Amino acid sequence: MSATTPTTLQMIGGGIATAAGFTAAGVSAGIKANGKPDLALIVSDRPATAAAVFTTNKAQAAPVLVSRQHLTASNGVVRAIIVNSGCANACTGDAGLGVARGMAAETARLVGCAPEQVLVASTGVIGVDLSLDKIRAGLPVAGEALAADQGSLAAQAIMTTDPFPKEAAMRISIGGRDVCIGGMAKGSGMIEPMMATMLGFVTTDAAVPVPLLQRALREVVDTTFNAITVDGECSTNDCVMLLANGASGVTIDAASYDAFAHALETVCLRLALGIVRGGEGATKLVTVSVTGAASAAEARKAAKAIANSPLVKTAVHGGDPNWGRLIAVAGRSGVEFDLSRAAVSIGSIVLFKDGRPYDEASPEAATYLRNDEVSLAVDLGAGRASSTVWTCDLSAEYVRINAEYRT
Amino acid sequence: MSATTPTTLQMIGGGIATAAGFTAAGVSAGIKANGKPDLALIVSDRPATAAAVFTTNKAQAAPVLVSRQHLTASNGVVRAIIVNSGCANACTGDAGLGVARGMAAETARLVGCAPEQVLVASTGVIGVDLSLDKIRAGLPVAGEALAADQGSLAAQAIMTTDPFPKEAAMRISIGGRDVCIGGMAKGSGMIEPMMATMLGFVTTDAAVPVPLLQRALREVVDTTFNAITVDGECSTNDCVMLLANGASGVTIDAASYDAFAHALETVCLRLALGIVRGGEGATKLVTVSVTGAASAAEARKAAKAIANSPLVKTAVHGGDPNWGRLIAVAGRSGVEFDLSRAAVSIGSIVLFKDGRPYDEASPEAATYLRNDEVSLAVDLGAGRASSTVWTCDLSAEYVRINAEYRT
Repeated sequence: MSATTPTTLQMIGGGIATAAGFTAAGVSAGIKANGKPDLALIVSDRPATAAAVFTTNKAQAAPVLVSRQHLTASNGVVRAIIVNSGCANACTGDAGLGVARGMAAETARLVGCAPEQVLVASTGVIGVDLSLDKIRAGLPVAGEALAADQGSLAAQAIMTTDPFPKEAAMRISIGGRDVCIGGMAKGSGMIEPMMATMLGFVTTDAAVPVPLLQRALREVVDTTFNAITVDGECSTNDCVMLLANGASGVTIDAASYDAFAHALETVCLRLALGIVRGGEGATKLVTVSVTGAASAAEARKAAKAIANSPLVKTAVHGGDPNWGRLIAVAGRSGVEFDLSRAAVSIGSIVLFKDGRPYDEASPEAATYLRNDEVSLAVDLGAGRASSTVWTCDLSAEYVRINAEYRT
Repeated sequence: MSATTPTTLQMIGGGIATAAGFTAAGVSAGIKANGKPDLALIVSDRPATAAAVFTTNKAQAAPVLVSRQHLTASNGVVRAIIVNSGCANACTGDAGLGVARGMAAETARLVGCAPEQVLVASTGVIGVDLSLDKIRAGLPVAGEALAADQGSLAAQAIMTTDPFPKEAAMRISIGGRDVCIGGMAKGSGMIEPMMATMLGFVTTDAAVPVPLLQRALREVVDTTFNAITVDGECSTNDCVMLLANGASGVTIDAASYDAFAHALETVCLRLALGIVRGGEGATKLVTVSVTGAASAAEARKAAKAIANSPLVKTAVHGGDPNWGRLIAVAGRSGVEFDLSRAAVSIGSIVLFKDGRPYDEASPEAATYLRNDEVSLAVDLGAGRASSTVWTCDLSAEYVRINAEYRT
């Protein structure tokens, strides 16, 4: 079997520590008041190439700034990632930068590497000081717990309002040898990653040169993490980090790149859809497809506008096939739009086409909307480009969660 | 007292038919299933100059298209406005255009003018055919009811999910003579007018040449109706129409323009704030002020992003002074932003400044947020421009209203 032979892809159980040579841990360091796990550690037993994408929000949290610096200083070769939940360490000034650097330094000492070989991430409330003492106390416990079967606990330790942990892992065969890609992610509010994304961590035991790894992550994030939205909000702490340690003995090159990227996309999409499914207050996973756009950028813009529309999201929540709201959003979204050539479908049921409603299909569409996973499709009647994004419905529970988040 | 003397402004009771020479009516034509008033008629006893601004949504409803045509065909001189609620007559194709034209023609016959001297507006569900027969049956009843004291009923007849009617009237003295400006408006969902606005109707007994009237409306709408948002949605039917019939004997010219425009702004702002106060599920009126922006456009963009943020709106609803969400939205809003120079205040209470939180003020800010009217202020630290917009909080009731709108 040569490297150019189509590879087999297989979803498997597991997550961030499923790829060979990786271990993980999730422990309680007392950052969350409720005592739940809040500190996750991911370690590679050998140097791993690293790629990352970060939030485009101009208010960047301390861990984002420090991880950027470390990626550069380490030439993209790292050993560990330390993540806390319960506190975003954002808008915390120089003190916050000191804490983020301290987290990396303490982790480096535990792992036995240089501080710049550690990446840092935080998630939780903005503007609250993060206690380095708590991290210091929790790290040795995490170090003791590090194991290949602790990925699930790590995935739990990065949760905030997430109703469930998000993990995914996949095995692919490249040149007759197995490569594993596994990851974890957290949501679940302040989610519209734009250009970057929320917290996602992916490991692989393939060896991937830094430029190829960065290219793969950038391409894959665009159609996965960057194609989801819960509430149109882009956080101060968003990031996706990808480590490749080569423990499988397989090196990704030009011939095997597509297979690797496809597998990476599958893992990332599963994590991203998990974030949407677990969106704050979400009861439905909604696929929004826009076709007939003048350009890919306009297709994405219209799809995101629909996916973020509170009127569309509440209609889906209520099971109301109110296609007029889809037309209204497409029309206001700032893209080319031709009402006389536009069309709206809910599931496979056409509700508006050729300038006229098909309201006789409304009851059927209402029945369809009772499903947990639903599709909305809008043709803009303006061209041939298309885009798909994913979102969830907007429920009263979203309001309750966010009105009471800090109380 | 000359026309250049500062004029006195006085808010008075009344609304759309308070200006001399105007009458109005609001009747039930059976368009709303619940039998509530759904047809409003506004008539000037003499030709009135007219100005209007319409939605920028590319899916424009039939009444918007017809009113645009009529404004042009009549050279901006009209006699009446006919408005129905309960059906938007949007996305209804050629049949819908026929109904909108029929509404104008029937009204013209009743009033005794040319069809193009009648403007038409509709509001309600998108994509449902509007019955011209019901309009035909209701119009004579409205004609019988026309009177100067029926403005309140007209304001009720244009309501959809509005919890209360919006009316405002003002008297100003220009050159020693009284001029009246009065109006009515409706909300209350699908509200972020952008460049145009929802349904608003204003009358004045001043005589105002068409170009001056259009200029006044355009300027005033920018700081009133276009500065509000309930849910970031821009409807297919938005419009504000302004009629000036000269019945007061006062003609607005360059000398009196500022006084007139200021009074018009006061009336429009009161109507616009009424829309926000009556926003779907709203419990609070929220003033969002952005300062320190690189340009006025950036100030408006950031203010709108904050005002439309579901995380900000739910925090306000919950009385949580979660200033980190204001920083996060400002940072992602796509405008120039400097975290180290930015500042956030809730009411007059500073919560973030010079790169550090002032969380000791949180309890005081939480107490302040219990008020029905609250102010949020963000300084972007990037320049000297500013903008103010108004919005409401996001409650579970908004979700309930919009999940069940058509059921």
